[in-house]
This record gives sequence, structure tokens and C-alpha cells, in this order.
Amino acid sequence: MVKLITIRSKGKGVTKTSMGKFVEKRPGKVKITIFDYDATSFQERNVDGPEECVPPKEGTFRWINIDGIYDKELVEKVCANFKVHSLVVKDILNNETRPKADDSCEYICIIMKMLYLEKPGIIIEQLSMILGPNYIVTFQERVGDVFGPIRDQIRTGRGRLRKSGSDYLAYKLIDAVVDDYFVILDSMREKIEDIEEEVVMDPAPEMLTVMHLLKKELIYLRKVVWPARELVNDLQTSESPLIKETTVMFLKDIYFHIIRVVDTIEIIHDIVSDTLDIYLSSISVKTNAVMKVLTVIATIFIPLTFLVGIYGMNFKYMPELTEPWGYPLILGISITAAVTMLTYFWKKHWL
Amino acid sequence: MVKLITIRSKGKGVTKTSMGKFVEKRPGKVKITIFDYDATSFQERNVDGPEECVPPKEGTFRWINIDGIYDKELVEKVCANFKVHSLVVKDILNNETRPKADDSCEYICIIMKMLYLEKPGIIIEQLSMILGPNYIVTFQERVGDVFGPIRDQIRTGRGRLRKSGSDYLAYKLIDAVVDDYFVILDSMREKIEDIEEEVVMDPAPEMLTVMHLLKKELIYLRKVVWPARELVNDLQTSESPLIKETTVMFLKDIYFHIIRVVDTIEIIHDIVSDTLDIYLSSISVKTNAVMKVLTVIATIFIPLTFLVGIYGMNFKYMPELTEPWGYPLILGISITAAVTMLTYFWKKHWL
Amino acid sequence: MVKLITIRSKGKGVTKTSMGKFVEKRPGKVKITIFDYDATSFQERNVDGPEECVPPKEGTFRWINIDGIYDKELVEKVCANFKVHSLVVKDILNNETRPKADDSCEYICIIMKMLYLEKPGIIIEQLSMILGPNYIVTFQERVGDVFGPIRDQIRTGRGRLRKSGSDYLAYKLIDAVVDDYFVILDSMREKIEDIEEEVVMDPAPEMLTVMHLLKKELIYLRKVVWPARELVNDLQTSESPLIKETTVMFLKDIYFHIIRVVDTIEIIHDIVSDTLDIYLSSISVKTNAVMKVLTVIATIFIPLTFLVGIYGMNFKYMPELTEPWGYPLILGISITAAVTMLTYFWKKHWL
Amino acid sequence: MVKLITIRSKGKGVTKTSMGKFVEKRPGKVKITIFDYDATSFQERNVDGPEECVPPKEGTFRWINIDGIYDKELVEKVCANFKVHSLVVKDILNNETRPKADDSCEYICIIMKMLYLEKPGIIIEQLSMILGPNYIVTFQERVGDVFGPIRDQIRTGRGRLRKSGSDYLAYKLIDAVVDDYFVILDSMREKIEDIEEEVVMDPAPEMLTVMHLLKKELIYLRKVVWPARELVNDLQTSESPLIKETTVMFLKDIYFHIIRVVDTIEIIHDIVSDTLDIYLSSISVKTNAVMKVLTVIATIFIPLTFLVGIYGMNFKYMPELTEPWGYPLILGISITAAVTMLTYFWKKHWL
Amino acid sequence: MVKLITIRSKGKGVTKTSMGKFVEKRPGKVKITIFDYDATSFQERNVDGPEECVPPKEGTFRWINIDGIYDKELVEKVCANFKVHSLVVKDILNNETRPKADDSCEYICIIMKMLYLEKPGIIIEQLSMILGPNYIVTFQERVGDVFGPIRDQIRTGRGRLRKSGSDYLAYKLIDAVVDDYFVILDSMREKIEDIEEEVVMDPAPEMLTVMHLLKKELIYLRKVVWPARELVNDLQTSESPLIKETTVMFLKDIYFHIIRVVDTIEIIHDIVSDTLDIYLSSISVKTNAVMKVLTVIATIFIPLTFLVGIYGMNFKYMPELTEPWGYPLILGISITAAVTMLTYFWKKHWL
Repeated sequence: MVKLITIRSKGKGVTKTSMGKFVEKRPGKVKITIFDYDATSFQERNVDGPEECVPPKEGTFRWINIDGIYDKELVEKVCANFKVHSLVVKDILNNETRPKADDSCEYICIIMKMLYLEKPGIIIEQLSMILGPNYIVTFQERVGDVFGPIRDQIRTGRGRLRKSGSDYLAYKLIDAVVDDYFVILDSMREKIEDIEEEVVMDPAPEMLTVMHLLKKELIYLRKVVWPARELVNDLQTSESPLIKETTVMFLKDIYFHIIRVVDTIEIIHDIVSDTLDIYLSSISVKTNAVMKVLTVIATIFIPLTFLVGIYGMNFKYMPELTEPWGYPLILGISITAAVTMLTYFWKKHWL
Repeated sequence: MVKLITIRSKGKGVTKTSMGKFVEKRPGKVKITIFDYDATSFQERNVDGPEECVPPKEGTFRWINIDGIYDKELVEKVCANFKVHSLVVKDILNNETRPKADDSCEYICIIMKMLYLEKPGIIIEQLSMILGPNYIVTFQERVGDVFGPIRDQIRTGRGRLRKSGSDYLAYKLIDAVVDDYFVILDSMREKIEDIEEEVVMDPAPEMLTVMHLLKKELIYLRKVVWPARELVNDLQTSESPLIKETTVMFLKDIYFHIIRVVDTIEIIHDIVSDTLDIYLSSISVKTNAVMKVLTVIATIFIPLTFLVGIYGMNFKYMPELTEPWGYPLILGISITAAVTMLTYFWKKHWL
Repeated sequence: MVKLITIRSKGKGVTKTSMGKFVEKRPGKVKITIFDYDATSFQERNVDGPEECVPPKEGTFRWINIDGIYDKELVEKVCANFKVHSLVVKDILNNETRPKADDSCEYICIIMKMLYLEKPGIIIEQLSMILGPNYIVTFQERVGDVFGPIRDQIRTGRGRLRKSGSDYLAYKLIDAVVDDYFVILDSMREKIEDIEEEVVMDPAPEMLTVMHLLKKELIYLRKVVWPARELVNDLQTSESPLIKETTVMFLKDIYFHIIRVVDTIEIIHDIVSDTLDIYLSSISVKTNAVMKVLTVIATIFIPLTFLVGIYGMNFKYMPELTEPWGYPLILGISITAAVTMLTYFWKKHWL
Repeated sequence: MVKLITIRSKGKGVTKTSMGKFVEKRPGKVKITIFDYDATSFQERNVDGPEECVPPKEGTFRWINIDGIYDKELVEKVCANFKVHSLVVKDILNNETRPKADDSCEYICIIMKMLYLEKPGIIIEQLSMILGPNYIVTFQERVGDVFGPIRDQIRTGRGRLRKSGSDYLAYKLIDAVVDDYFVILDSMREKIEDIEEEVVMDPAPEMLTVMHLLKKELIYLRKVVWPARELVNDLQTSESPLIKETTVMFLKDIYFHIIRVVDTIEIIHDIVSDTLDIYLSSISVKTNAVMKVLTVIATIFIPLTFLVGIYGMNFKYMPELTEPWGYPLILGISITAAVTMLTYFWKKHWL
Repeated sequence: MVKLITIRSKGKGVTKTSMGKFVEKRPGKVKITIFDYDATSFQERNVDGPEECVPPKEGTFRWINIDGIYDKELVEKVCANFKVHSLVVKDILNNETRPKADDSCEYICIIMKMLYLEKPGIIIEQLSMILGPNYIVTFQERVGDVFGPIRDQIRTGRGRLRKSGSDYLAYKLIDAVVDDYFVILDSMREKIEDIEEEVVMDPAPEMLTVMHLLKKELIYLRKVVWPARELVNDLQTSESPLIKETTVMFLKDIYFHIIRVVDTIEIIHDIVSDTLDIYLSSISVKTNAVMKVLTVIATIFIPLTFLVGIYGMNFKYMPELTEPWGYPLILGISITAAVTMLTYFWKKHWL
């Protein structure tokens, strides 16, 4: 069974405030990782508190990744270190914030959703990013992400990542998130294609469940992807000095990727809708076929049963009963009637 | 049962005029509350008449809240004190006015709808707000609102409310109204989620009623929320000197909240529509299954009943009747026919 | 029964030309009423011919109302007196002209539709208005309108009507027409609300007829109201010197009224559509329930009828027939089978 | 039966090229008619070849009408005489060109579709027009059009046609084409109105065919009318010196006519869609009613047939059979059961 | 059976990367063809490696066509020769790139989809084009295309192709691709027209399959054609010096062709949807007809069977049995009841 689940538990450990739902401090430890790098060197370390989460000195780049936004105080302290506005902090802490890019001169706050295909269904996780002139701070809801290859590129110095600025790192991170959307979409496409072929010939109620869940997931995916499209478009056309000319072309490339995601969502949605229509039509066709069988049988045998019922009556004075031709006549009538009926139904294409 | 009810009684106590429906004077007392505050002090009092409802002297802020717009004369007098245009007064008195923000240099008139989840359904109440340079006048249809926390902030002086101007108070009021929309939406979401899982397996007519009411409520919610979105956008992009630069960022935040409300309404609407489609398909599937049972039973036993009917006839000359193998033969034919039929239906997946 | 009827009779007394359908001269007299007024005095008179229908002398205002556009010559002569372009005259004569506002420097021609709720249905009547610097000429299809209160205001001098120019009078006329739309909408809303509650529980074919007629009426209403919205918007944003600055605010107010009319039409349309969906689902549910009853009865009794049919056969050699336990056994089997079946259906929720 | 037929025969006499489908030379003669006129005189003649199809001398106007675009060479020669671009010539020769107005300084090429209501259905014919400073060349697919009245106006000199330029003639031609659309729409409206009333009470399968054909025709009409709207709008807002200021007002008038055509198409489409929905609901209602009759009959008589079947058994030991109260008892049980059932169904509104 | 197949095999030989799916090197040889031509001469040759794939010397034009994008290295080397940006190279290598035109000063990269109608269904193949000042490089997925006539024009020197620049060649290539879309659409149109006429009278389940496949193909076609429309529009309105003024008119012509493709897709889509609706209605009508037959038969004969069952009972004391009028009476009642029922059903239009 497929299911859309977010990691928020219903009602428990969640504070409802004017800003939506805040994710509360959880037992699990928050994990902070700091990457310091420039074209020639790099350093990676895990820290415990918000004290070391500060902007780097000029000439080097810093990527701070924080797994766990449940620790409200920690997030607020880190944000204070980077002089982030209180409303932006609220957006980071609230994991239902709509994807968007907020440009406030000193930094750009980018909020996106990461999608994971875990056992019971799709998991939506919020990724918040503070993009400054030479640093990036990323906030995730939990440990585990799709940024492994990017970390490796920093570690090994392969590619242009270490040579380029923080905006290029932001591009790489967004790109990794968007590319991961295709994995979800491919799995959905396979699911509907499994059903599609059988739906005309052998429609089964389980297909209804799958189609319903697919439709529901698409509704949520749209909510995640449409604003992401605006987000990337905003970044690409933004005139912020934080995004260099050379990075704009890469953002434009992501933009085309997201459009393809949107296209694919619409295609899957249309196919699911069409399949549901075909399913309904198939059921009607099947019911019609069942009805025909019933009607053929009933139309042939119910009148004949009446006929033989007549001669099953116990009236004293029924002259036909004593005649030798009585029984063969009735049998003859029965067979003639049945054959006539069958011919009629054959002509009406009921058989 | 869910029901959308406004507090207007149908036909009674309502004057129909060219401006729509005016709410008439009712027995209940109108309640007027005045808050006078500045950064250091505050005063709260209830007054009886419109005489004290006048703009405050410079340097202090005043929030006048009037519960009850049935007293047309009182509202008109208060509005006259603040030099409000007669068309705006008509909009305030008419509780079917479309949400909007009217900027007329000296003041901005903001009209919104508050939603309450009361026993029989959702109640729509109009909130009108006159935002002046150092005052706000709010008109509500009845006593009881969601502004308790804001009043507490004024009383205790917590937060930046007392230090900021009337535009910040307006922001807080609009924010409280918009945040309350989420409560309604959460309750609707729960309702549809309750139905959703069962609809494929066990569709019941009560679900139809609930889905119909949800759809209807969503139609009305849209009518309330869509213009509210325009309203907040108008405020946020307005260049009125009444709204300070620092408040604009807060309004932008509300704007994103309202977009999320709009998104959520569309999501619930899509889910309800999909669920209705699935419901209809489920019913078709069930009818098809019922038909199959009927057809299987009828197809097996109706012909056999005819067969035994033949040998129930009382003809004198029916040679088979006297043969010892007659009865076993008929029994044999019956069992063979039944087994053949069952096999056939098994292959056709009817069983 | 509800029906959309226009006062045009089909084919008779109507000339088809390149401009649409002209309404021909009819036996009934055309009624011409002239109001001459200024801030201090007023004069009202009925005239017979077009000779007196001329622009007034400066400093006074004139409202000429012509009931009956069937008299083509008369309309043309009056229009000639006011130097109206021949295409505009054609629009006035053709009662299928789309609502619009034509600004041609010397005058603005406003064409709207008035809606009446008469016995067999809704009647659409065209109102054409020539708005000049100090005069208004209105053309109606027939006697009877919603302008009574406006005439009274001219007669009594109450309000600002006599003090204001012809553009304010135009506002009052348009406002009266638009406000009347709400009467139609309220009656439609009541009709659908009458049906709505019963549709799930007790769907009846009459509801289909009502819903179909409502949908059709809404289609025509949209055709009337949507262009009226553009019309009012055009007037409100027009920079014609014929519309004074002070009147623009009133036109803006009408604009919000029309938007509410549009909203209400969409709401009623959505509710009717939803109700039709629910109706169809309800019928499916009911058919399913009926099928279950039939299937339960047939499944229990058809096999048993076959069983008792066996022992109704007249074979000589049927050992069971002579045994004393034969009859009780058959009865026992029958009861057991029936109870088993009922239990099975009970578990399947068919009972 | 209604059918959308174009005069192109499938496959035969048609060359498929990169530009679409060219209509090939046919046996029938091409008919060329030339009108030379100015304010005081006119001359009408039929010519055989393209030689005389040249621009007129200054001060006079010329209208060349060519019926038959199958003669590719002739069309190309005429176009060469007027220096028409080769791409435009291709558009004229291809009768599937989308309606459009091409402004190329020296001339405007206008391509429209004429609709005829002939026996088996609607015929779409392409009209191409080359509008020059003092000439118009029109190309039609075949003899016969709606321009009779315009020819008469040139012949008699009535109206302003001969006094006005070629752009006014173009207006008259376009106007004649657009006005003819209403004839088609009126016939469609009548067809759907014939069905509408009966659809709830007496839905018949023939209605399905009519509705399907109407929907299909509307799809094609839209394809013809929507681009025609753009075309007229382009002309009306074009700043070409070929269209005089005085003609623009007339084009604006056509524009409103086309909008009415578009509105009417949408209205008919909506009514047909609604009627189809109602049709489907009606069929469901009728099926439900039929099912109820079947179920009532079966539920009453099938159990009773079983009951009497019991006492039709030939067991030796059936004590009831010999009792005098046996027969009346069974009759009594039967009548009681039937009455009970009928009462039950009456209460369930099944009767 | 129709099927949409792309030449990509699922999972095998395909590398999933952040850019989508790359097509891997395949055993088949890549085929490179170079056309060198100017107004007076031309040379055609096949080469093996990327070494000769370089820009031509000034004054001559070069068209390099590469069939097979599986050879990543080769494509990259060729692209390097023409200084193509690495992101553009990735787009060329990924055969799921969305159609688009990328203008980067030195060259324009045009990516389109070619459609082929091969046995099992429609095949989508990507065509990438690098348009430089005097060269064009085209990349295709496999050997075989629709450019035969264009090659012939280069070889023979017919038309303006050799005299015009590389932008005119690009126009010819795009035109060939777009015109080929009509072949696909014509085949789809024929398929739906085959079904359309029979769907009301004789709806068969196979039609469901065809309609479902048509709908799915239309969904994919849209995805191919809509961005192609933007692409051509971008080219036509681009101010790139690579596209000469004289070519713009030809691109405008393609633009109108693509709009016709879009229109046709929408028309086919609407017809398929309508046909599906009609299909569903037809099935309902047929089921209703079958139900009526069943109900008529059952309603007439089930009660009569009960009646004759009564007199088949073996009670000792059944006075009617011994009366001579008993049997004729029962026969009379039966015939009367049957005739009455038939009359009733006749009046209800069930027969």
C-alpha cells in the first residue's frame, strides 16, 4: 500500500502557533556538520553547539548542515549568528512552509521540499538554505539526504565545486533535490503502467485503491513542485549580487528540469484520470455482459417453467394429460421456444 | 451533521436595500471597547455611546472595537466621528460585502470574514476595520472573537505591539483571522481523511452527504479566501503612508499564509472530488459483484428447476417416469450441469 | 416550471437582418416620458412624438425614457435629434446586442440587460442608455421597470440626485438594474437549496428537471452579467469628461456589486453541478441496494425451489419419497440453507 | 442525420505537400468575375484567363472574384499580377489554412471560412481575400456565396459602398460571412432545444447520436470562429494605411458580432454538455425504476413459489396434505406475505 | 494494437545521472554525413571520426548530420570543435530533453522531437541542431529521417536552398519535422472516426482500448508539440543575427503550421473525450434495455408460475381441482394477466 506520510506525528510533540505547526524538540540529537573549503584545501568537522556556526573569514567558503530543526533554540541561535530576520527563522522552524526564495540583500533564504520514497509511501522533508556571500547554512528535518555526491566532490576537489562560490554550491544542492523528484515520478509511472493494460480486460477493485492513492500523491506533489518552479525562476531572474552571472546559466538548466517534472506530473495525472474513466466504462461493460447472461437464461427458462407448471397441476379435468401426444408436444414446444429465443438473442448480439 | 450557517436569520429582521442586506437593530446590547495605549501605558474601558469613539490625540494609539453592527445609527455616528465616506459605511453595515481593502488617503477600510467552527457548522462573520494614522476601529457582528492574545499583548506590553503603530496592530488582527482559517481547514481535512480509506472497501450513503457538504463549504470558503488574498496583496503593495515600511514585510508573511490557505482549499477540493469519483466507481464495482452472484445462482438453478418441472407434469404417457434409472439420471444431469456451470463461471472470474 | 423566455415571439413580427433580429413595430403604443429637472425644480410629461425629444438647454437636466423599441422610425428620429451614430442606433434597435459601453466623445451609449422574474421564467429585456453632458435617453423594450424609486427621488428632490449631473442619474439607473439581479439569484439559490437536502436521501426525477433548468438559466445569466462587468469597469476607468470624478467612486461601488453577482452565479453553478453529481451517485447507491434485495431473495429461494421441485417429480422409483424422514429432512435442509445464506449476506453487509 | 463535410474528397484529387493539402485542378471551369466601379459608374464582366486580373488604374475600384482554387496555375498567375508573396499564395491554395490576417504593407491577405448548411451537414469553404489600396481579389473554393446583396449594392449604387474604398468593401464581405454564422448556430440551437425537453422524461438513444454530432460540429466551429475573432481584432487595431479611420468603427462592430458568435457557441456547448449529463442521469433513474419493479415482483412471488412447491412434493408422509385446513392455510400465508411485502415496498417508496 | 514506444530500453544500457537518462554507446556504428555546399557547388561525404566535423571556411555552408547519439565521446568531441557549452552537450546526449531553442550568441541550439509511425506505435526520436553562422550540426538517435527531399535539393541545387544561408536550411529541417506531425495526426483522426459512428449503435469493449491508447498518445503528443510551439515562436521573435530577416517570414509560416497541429490535437482530444462519454451513455442505454426485457419476462411469468404452483399442490381438500371449469379458468386468468401486463409495459414504452 502506498501512503503519503510526513514525519510529523499527529498532535503529539507539535506546538500549534500562529505560524502553523512547529516541530518540537525531540530526544534525538541534532547533528551539525561544517565544511570549510577553498580551491586548494578543505576541512570537515562535526560540532555540538551553535557557537561555531558563524560566517567564515573572507576568501574561504563554509557549508554548515544542520540535521534536525526540532531544537528551536539551537536554530534560533545559529540564525542569530547570521543575522537572519525573525520571520525567516519562523519559516525555517515550521516544516509546512511553502517553497520560496526570499532575497534580503545580505542573504537569500531558499526553502524547498525533499521527497523520499520510503516503505509506507512518500516522505516530504523540508530543506531550508541560507545562502550568503561565502557561506551556506542548510537545515534539514532529519539525518539522511541526497547530498552524498556533493560532499564527495568537496572532499576530493573534483569538478569546479571548490573553485566556485557558495552560489554554485546552492545550485548543486537544488539540482540534487530536483533530480530526486524524478525517482518518485518514475515509481509512480511504473505503478500506473502496471494497471493500465489490465484495466480494460480485467478491472479489479484493488486498482481503484492504487489509482486513488496515486491521484492523492500527485495533488501533494503539485503543491511541492509548482512553488519550486517559481522559486528557481525567481533565483534565475533575480539580480542579487549573491548569484553570479556564471551560475545563472546553471539555474536556467534546473528551471528546464523542473518544467519537465511539472510536465511529467501533469502527464501522470492525465493518465491516471483517463485510466479511472476507462475503469468505470469497463465495469459498465462487464455489468452489461453479466446482465445479458442473466436475461438470456431467465427469458428462456422462466416461461418454460411456467409451461411445465401448467401440466403439473392436479385438476381432474385436463384433457391433454391423457393424450399420448401431450408429453412430446410440450417437449417440442419447449425446444422450439428455446431455439427461437437463442436465435433472437444471437441476432441482437447478446450471445 | 455539518452545515454552513451565517448568523443572519432568513427574511426576519433584515431590510433588503439597494446595497444588499442590512442587518437590523437587535435586542442584544452593542458592546464598545476602547483601548488607549502607547509604549509605556495603556487604558481599557467599555463605553455605551458613540460619543467617546473619536480619534485619539497625537502620540497615543487607540483601538475601538464594536461588537454588533445591528445598531445602524451607532455605526453611522462612529463613522461620522472618523469622517468615513457614506459608501464605506454601507459596506460595513452590509454583512455580505466582499472582502476588500479600500484606500482613501485618510484611512484604509479593510473588510474580512472571520470563520468559526460552531456546533451545526461553519459560521461566517464579517470584520470591518478602519485603519487610521494612530487608530483602528473594528466592527464585528457579535461578541466573541480570536483577538484575545492580542488584547493580552496590549495589556501586558509584551512584544513590539505597543511600541509599533496602528498598522502593526492591523497586521496582528489580520494575522489572527487568517491563522484561524487553518483550524477550519484542519477539521475539513480530517473529515475527508476519515472517509477516504473506507470509500473503496465499504462505500456508505452517509459518505455522500459528508462529501456534498464538504464541497459546498469549500465553495463558500473560496469565496471568502480568494478576495482576502487580493486584499492582503493590495495592502502589501500599497504605497499608502498609513502602512510603514517595517510592516510591509509582516504583510508579505501573511500573504504567504493566505496562499497556503488557498493551496490547502484546492487540495481538499481535489481530494473530495477524487473521493467522490472513487465512491461512484466503488458502487459500480459492488453492483457488478452483486449482479454476478445473482446471475450465477439464477443461471445454475433456473434451468434445473425447469428440468425437474418437466417430470412433475402429470401426463399419462411419460415413459421415463416408470423407468428405474429415471430419477438417478435426472439427479446426474442436474449435478453435471451445475458443476459445468460453476467451472465456466470460475474461469470467467465471476466467483 | 421555470423557463427562460424573452418577449420576442419566434419568427413572427421579427425581421432578420445582418445586424441580428430587429423587433418590429407592434400595435401597442410607444410611451415616451420626459423629466426636466434642476436642483430647485422639476417637470414630468408624456409626449407622443419624437419632436420634443431633443437635448435640453444648458443648466437643466433631461431624462427621456422610451418604452418600446418596436417603432424603428421613432427611435431613429430621436437618435437623430441627439446625433447618434447609425451603428449605435442599430445596436439599440436589436434586442440581442451584447452589453457594452460605447464612448464616442459627445455621448456614451450604455447597453444592459434587465432581468424580470415573471410567471413562466426569467425575462431578459434590453435597456439602452444615451448619456450626454446634461441628458439621458433610455430605451426599454416594454412598459414597466425597476426605476420607480429613482423617479420618486427626482419628484421629491430627496437625496443628491437633482443636484448632481446626468452621470449620477446613469449611476442610479445602472445600480437599480444590477441590484435587481440579486432577486433572480436569491430565487435560484432557494430552488437549489430546496433540492439539495433531499437529493441524497430521496432523489426524484423532478429534481433533474429543476437542476437542468437552473443550469440553463445560469448559462444565460453569465452571458448577461460577464459583459456587464466589463461595461462597468470600462465606465469606471474611462477618462470621458461626461463622467465626473465624484461619480467614479459610485461606479466603483457598482463594480464590486457586479463582482458579487458573478461570484454568486459561480457559487450557484458549482452547487448545482455538485448536486447533480451527488444525485447520480445516490441513484447508483439506490440501484445497488435494490439489486442486493433481489439477489438475496433469489439466492435463497431459487435453489430451494429447485430442491422441492425434485421431490415434485412423478418418477415411480424415488426411494426417499416413501421414507417417513423424507419430508422433515427436506424442510430441515431448506431452513439450514436459508439461515446459512442469510448469515453470509449479513456478513457481507448486504442486509 | 447531421454531418460535417468539407468539399474535399478523401485522398482523391488531393496532393499532400509540406504545406498541407492542396486542392487539385478539377474538371469544372473556374469562374472569374470582375467588378470595376467608382462613385458614379460600374462595370461587371466575366473573364476567362488571369490576364485581365490586374490592379485597376488609380481613382477606380476593382473587385475580382475567383470561384475555384483548384486551378493552381491560374491562382499563381493572378497572385503574380498583384505581387503576392509565394507563402501567401500557398495559404490561398491550401484550403486548410487557419483564418488569419497577414499585413504586408502593399496588401493585406485575409483568410476566413464560410459555413454553409447543406443537406448532409455543414460545409466549410475557405475565402481568401487580397485587400489592396483600390482593389480586392477574393478566392473561393466553388461557385455560390452569400455576397449577392453586396453585388446588388454595387450594381444599383445604393448605400455608401461605391463611394467608399476597398476597405469598406472588405468590411461588407467579412460582415456577410460572419452574419451567416448565426444561421448555422440557430439551426444547432433548435436541434438541441428539440431534444432538451424530452430528455428527462423520455430519453431515447437517437438523442445520443444528435448530441454527439452537435458536440463534434461545435468543436469544428470553434476552430473556425476563434481565429476569426483574432483576425477581426488584428484588422481593427492594425495601423495599416489600407484601412481608413472611418472603416475601423465598422470593423469594431463586426468584432462585437463575432464575440456574440463565440458566446453563442459556448452557450450551445454548455447546454449540450448539460443535456448529456441529464440524459445519463435519466437513464440511471429509469434503470433504477425498472430494477424496482423486477425486485418487487421477484421478492413477492419467488418465496411463495417455493412455498407451494413444498406441498407439490410427492412424499408419502406429509401430514398437512390430508388436513382440511392445509390448503386455506397456505393461501392465507401467501396473501398475508404478499400484502406485508407490498406495504414494506410502499413505505420504501419503491411503488 | 497501438503503443507509444521510445527506442530507450527500460533500465538496460542506460546511465541514470543528474541530467536524466543518458543513452549509452551501442554496438551499431554511428553514421556521420557532411554536406559542403555553396550556390554553385556541393560535396557529400561520410566520415568516420569527429576530426573532420569542424566549422567550414567562410563563404561555404556545411551541414553535418550525426545519426546515433550513443557515442558520448564522439558527440562531445564534435561539440568541442564547435565550442558548444557543456550543459548544451548534456541536453544533446539526453534524449528526454524538452524541446527548446537556446540562443548563445555564437550558435543557437534547437532541440525537437521527430515522430515516426512504426509498427507497434509512435516512436519519439530527438533531433538536436546546432545552428551557426555558416553551418548546421544535427544529431539524431538513429539512422533514417524525413530529410530526404532536403538532401535532394542540396544535391540538385533546385530551389533557393543552396543560395540561402544556414538559417534557411534550419527552417527547411524544422518544417520537415513539423509537417510530419500531420501524418501522425491524420492516422489518429482516422482511428477515432472509425469508432465514432458505431459507438452509439454497437459499443464494443475493443473501442475502449483504442480510445484509451489514443488519449494516452495525445497526452504525449502535447508534451512534444506545445514546447515546439514556444521554440518556433522564440526563433521567430529572436533578434539573433544568425537568423536573417528574410527567414523570419518562413519561421512565421511554420508557427502557423504548429498552431494548426496544436488545434488538431485539441480537436482529436475533444472528439475522443466526447466519444468516451457517448460510449458510457450507450452502455447505460443498452443495460437499461436488457433490464427491461428481463423485467417484462419475469413480471409476466413469475406470478403465473406461482399460480400454477398452487394447483400443483397435493392437498386432499382442494375443491377447485375437481371442478370441470378449474383448468380453463386458470388458463383464462393466465392469458388475461399476461395480456394486461403486456399492455401496461407497452404503454410504459418498455417494449
